Amino acid sequence: MIQSLILLDKNELDLRLDRIITSMKRQQADAVLLTDNASLYYLTGRVFLGYIYITADARMQVFVQRPVELDGTVVNYIHKPEDIPAIIDSKPATLGLELNNIVWATVERLHALFPAARLVNASAIMMEARSIKTSREIEMIKASGIKQERVYKEMPRLYREGMTDIEFQIEIERASRLEGCLGQFRIAGDSMELFMANIIAGDNADTPSPYDFAMGGAGMDPSLPVGANGTTIKPGMTVMVDANGNYTGYMTDMTRIFSLGDIPAEAIKAHECSRRIHRELTKAGVPGAKASFLYEMAVNIAREDGLESYFMGHRQHAKFVGHGLGIEINELPVIAPRSRDIILPGQVIALEPKFVIPHVGAVGVENTYHVTDDGWECLTNAPEEIIPLR
Amino acid sequence: MIQSLILLDKNELDLRLDRIITSMKRQQADAVLLTDNASLYYLTGRVFLGYIYITADARMQVFVQRPVELDGTVVNYIHKPEDIPAIIDSKPATLGLELNNIVWATVERLHALFPAARLVNASAIMMEARSIKTSREIEMIKASGIKQERVYKEMPRLYREGMTDIEFQIEIERASRLEGCLGQFRIAGDSMELFMANIIAGDNADTPSPYDFAMGGAGMDPSLPVGANGTTIKPGMTVMVDANGNYTGYMTDMTRIFSLGDIPAEAIKAHECSRRIHRELTKAGVPGAKASFLYEMAVNIAREDGLESYFMGHRQHAKFVGHGLGIEINELPVIAPRSRDIILPGQVIALEPKFVIPHVGAVGVENTYHVTDDGWECLTNAPEEIIPLR
Repeated sequence: MIQSLILLDKNELDLRLDRIITSMKRQQADAVLLTDNASLYYLTGRVFLGYIYITADARMQVFVQRPVELDGTVVNYIHKPEDIPAIIDSKPATLGLELNNIVWATVERLHALFPAARLVNASAIMMEARSIKTSREIEMIKASGIKQERVYKEMPRLYREGMTDIEFQIEIERASRLEGCLGQFRIAGDSMELFMANIIAGDNADTPSPYDFAMGGAGMDPSLPVGANGTTIKPGMTVMVDANGNYTGYMTDMTRIFSLGDIPAEAIKAHECSRRIHRELTKAGVPGAKASFLYEMAVNIAREDGLESYFMGHRQHAKFVGHGLGIEINELPVIAPRSRDIILPGQVIALEPKFVIPHVGAVGVENTYHVTDDGWECLTNAPEEIIPLR
Repeated sequence: MIQSLILLDKNELDLRLDRIITSMKRQQADAVLLTDNASLYYLTGRVFLGYIYITADARMQVFVQRPVELDGTVVNYIHKPEDIPAIIDSKPATLGLELNNIVWATVERLHALFPAARLVNASAIMMEARSIKTSREIEMIKASGIKQERVYKEMPRLYREGMTDIEFQIEIERASRLEGCLGQFRIAGDSMELFMANIIAGDNADTPSPYDFAMGGAGMDPSLPVGANGTTIKPGMTVMVDANGNYTGYMTDMTRIFSLGDIPAEAIKAHECSRRIHRELTKAGVPGAKASFLYEMAVNIAREDGLESYFMGHRQHAKFVGHGLGIEINELPVIAPRSRDIILPGQVIALEPKFVIPHVGAVGVENTYHVTDDGWECLTNAPEEIIPLR
């Protein structure tokens, strides 16, 4: 029954460790002690309850509380984090902890293991390391993209006349799950919540939401105020489908627009503008380009088409047009006005230039791209036109 | 378009504020500054991006970043938390922040608004306040229970011969969603993850998981190692269904066992033992009883029946038999060996005495109860016997 803890092969683990060590050195961390699920998964290929300690000389030690029965040759089983210092022989002068990902009480508890150490933000170290994907990670993201494409192609067949947005969503959820979608997806930070998909029909697209997603929606309940709100899908409306793409632990992010009956020319024009923004940004986003420049470019294209007031929302605007993703839905780089990120090969970026057309709904395309030296490779390939539901 | 921020009526809000103030005084907090979604929801009936400041003299101020368009008479719109001190006229000597729920960086940022204040743990204050439900909260939990019962009664009809655990789960997810399940459910703390349901068939019940749920399961992927793993449901197996009961923002928690073909007498005996534990604990759990005593009682009953080694797991054991719940799945009290909690009227408690029978699966019942002066009222009423799938 004994299972190997580390599911990555040695080369792959070394590549990831190298990236972390480089980032640790830049941020002057002698050691990092990691416990966020995303970090543990990145370094072992599995989620467990425990800790990983890495020193700047590339020594990695794993401490496990649960599950039982992992291979003891690479694992130190502990009852509580206070057991760690006796096993580690070093006393770091600076210690990286995940200050943006772990609750205050846990950070303080871990800091107390090495009370003399000055704290460094390991969240920043891990975000930087994870922003450039290995080929193995790209493979896993591509595998998610292929499954997500299949589900999107099936969606028109899931629609039945008279459906509400949430009824359509439930059939999409089922199709996604049958295709292998894991359901859960990880969001860094602790205030954003979303269940499976953001699907919004008609004017619900223009309902402001508390969350930092591209589009809002009232949601079904004030305890989860985002997305579908029970709107019956009617002629003249668009339906935006931005669904969970986590099929492998690494996700893609994808949006397509459906419509019922005839929709106004302005909505079609805005949708085509979104497609133009995709073409222009993926062309301009050569390695070395500034993420903030890409954002400005998107705004300028929307402005040229006279669509600025609908861009990324109408009553409330989102201030970004794209984001890195992988294990989590909000990784680096961020394509936003004040972003200091630079486009680099190996990044995986979802671009989502969207528009809210009042009384019609949301339009725009979202695709996930792999940035390479030879350009941006699209990982979510399905027709981009507005798809009629009947 | 302007909406009221506070969706609770004044009496209800006052009841909740009273509970918080009592707890603040006990924990010597002059003020609390809250931002966790669960806290914001508790005090307003909605989730938003913002902060609530409460002083020990029962003055509550609300600060909102998003969404736009909430009623400005009770809302202070801010761009960032640093705008708060200029609006508040008090300087608390002790300040409660949610140290167990908010990431380190956010707590430090909020503490910097009142740098002279000594920190108090507002997570403990809110957990204590929320552990006794108001009648309005009980109503919302009951409403979830009624919907969850309906879905459980429908489950046998969702089974098809040859199904895997995950295929069965997907149909249960769909039925739950069509009944109004919100999907998302809140878990306090930041390491536990679970999608919609923990459904485990046969020996997968005995696979240790990293999470602090009552039963494990390997899951579909090492990035989310809990629950269904693709086991085909076969004669001689039990299928445990512990599904999401969040229909109103307040949830119930419920488990029933299904079986295919004949299952061994020992599994049936253990299931009946679970039902006996329910009967004995709900009788013994009078106001004033110790939660730790109830746990010991459950272990003793399992031992009397010679089932101790299967109780709450086999290869890996969970060290609790019940938990409070409401907005989150893990509230107070905790029915566990070292719990210091006392049973009190107004608590809502899920009891889940379960057993893992090797080569058969999990058995046992989970119900959610409302503790009253006249006894424990069950809020998840559906037949408790093992339910044959064919």
